Amino acid sequence: MKRELSIKETIQRGANFFMPSLSLDCVIFGFHENELKVLLLKMKNADTWALPGGFIYKEEDIENAAIRVLRERTGLHDIFLRQFHVFGQPSRSEKKFHSNLLRKDGIKVSKDNWILQRFITVGYYALVDFATVTPEPDQSSVACEWKDIYSIQDLFMDHKHILDTALYTLRMQLNYVPIGHKLLPQKFTMPELQKLYETILGKKLDRRNFQRRILSFGFIKRLKETRKGGAHKAPFLYSFDLKKYKKALEQGLQGGW
Amino acid sequence: MKRELSIKETIQRGANFFMPSLSLDCVIFGFHENELKVLLLKMKNADTWALPGGFIYKEEDIENAAIRVLRERTGLHDIFLRQFHVFGQPSRSEKKFHSNLLRKDGIKVSKDNWILQRFITVGYYALVDFATVTPEPDQSSVACEWKDIYSIQDLFMDHKHILDTALYTLRMQLNYVPIGHKLLPQKFTMPELQKLYETILGKKLDRRNFQRRILSFGFIKRLKETRKGGAHKAPFLYSFDLKKYKKALEQGLQGGW
Repeated sequence: MKRELSIKETIQRGANFFMPSLSLDCVIFGFHENELKVLLLKMKNADTWALPGGFIYKEEDIENAAIRVLRERTGLHDIFLRQFHVFGQPSRSEKKFHSNLLRKDGIKVSKDNWILQRFITVGYYALVDFATVTPEPDQSSVACEWKDIYSIQDLFMDHKHILDTALYTLRMQLNYVPIGHKLLPQKFTMPELQKLYETILGKKLDRRNFQRRILSFGFIKRLKETRKGGAHKAPFLYSFDLKKYKKALEQGLQGGW
Repeated sequence: MKRELSIKETIQRGANFFMPSLSLDCVIFGFHENELKVLLLKMKNADTWALPGGFIYKEEDIENAAIRVLRERTGLHDIFLRQFHVFGQPSRSEKKFHSNLLRKDGIKVSKDNWILQRFITVGYYALVDFATVTPEPDQSSVACEWKDIYSIQDLFMDHKHILDTALYTLRMQLNYVPIGHKLLPQKFTMPELQKLYETILGKKLDRRNFQRRILSFGFIKRLKETRKGGAHKAPFLYSFDLKKYKKALEQGLQGGW
């Protein structure tokens, strides 16, 4: 049953192979050259953008389901997804809205169809270099695009709230996860790292405070090399010390304690 | 339907009023005088301890459900619960194990009863002063007790894994949440705060590093007063600066950025 289903099949017969009342949504942040974006799908028959989301097969691990859903809906693969929050307000499932969408798609369902029930959704997020991946919309979308994070006004259902919560989580994690070790070159300067942090935080940071704090986290190391060729004094190069980070995690010493 | 149900009612007719395949479990950490404990229930008819957990009514917000479940199962109320992770491996629901338990309880259910389906559980945690609360077991438990966190070997189902994940989360949050502002007196010394952190982390910390780091987080302030009366030089007193913390949160400046 793990082949891709048509939209009609999914909706009419979904109760047979999906977990009831449970969905997941993916917030894929994209960073490149000091821009922060998020991957959105433009829905068919609705003038609105949505996060890529989907359902969980009855025998499927939810972590695997998140990876599969992202691949099916956007073409993205080999992406490390982190679970960040469950959205479980009863009001988040708008029965009427869904009924209207289905009518526009020409899909008939009974009033007690599984898709019209209350859904609780598990949020996953990831941060990737958006220049290295080419997203593609699935059959239920007309577009799949990277959108500037700071210009998004409104999204499908409660997806704007899900996006905001993911961004808050990402900003928190800057304190103890080596975010960016796949977004910067292997060796980078302190200003390059600071620019990454500033882009994610959406604000300027003090240079000295930044350097002091980031080094105290214990997952950045200064190399003996400098970057030559600029007009100024050659700046030191740094790299992520993932070994040290891993060891610290294992010892429960996160965050420099 | 929101009255407390008998175990038999809950299990035989639960499909009518609970969300399908979805549960929640609460990890309640207790701290007092440098001891870290967790609140566990001893199950009837099974020689095992479990986290207090339960189900979500069809129209109930999951955050409210967590508060209600904790109150119904342990008597604890007015506790701030934080969602921390969803546990969604298909193998976590042991159908046979549940069937056996039900048989011992003298409860008959059909093979397709809702309680024997796969369950995904949402984990919540809290940290309280265990000297200020008196837990009481519910009708499906024979005891409700605080157990030393470092002496727990095994628990019901995957509850040990849920507990370990909560402890990991709690330790992470020491970096950016004013944990302990209800566990220490309003004014405390730096060694008292350090002892709290050491108890939660399960390890000794360097005094100077601790003081430097904790002050850099921006939610602890030094008062002008000292504590008099000791044999040594009167130590400075500190308190949690929750106003500053709240303002920082609102501005997205968590963790001292």
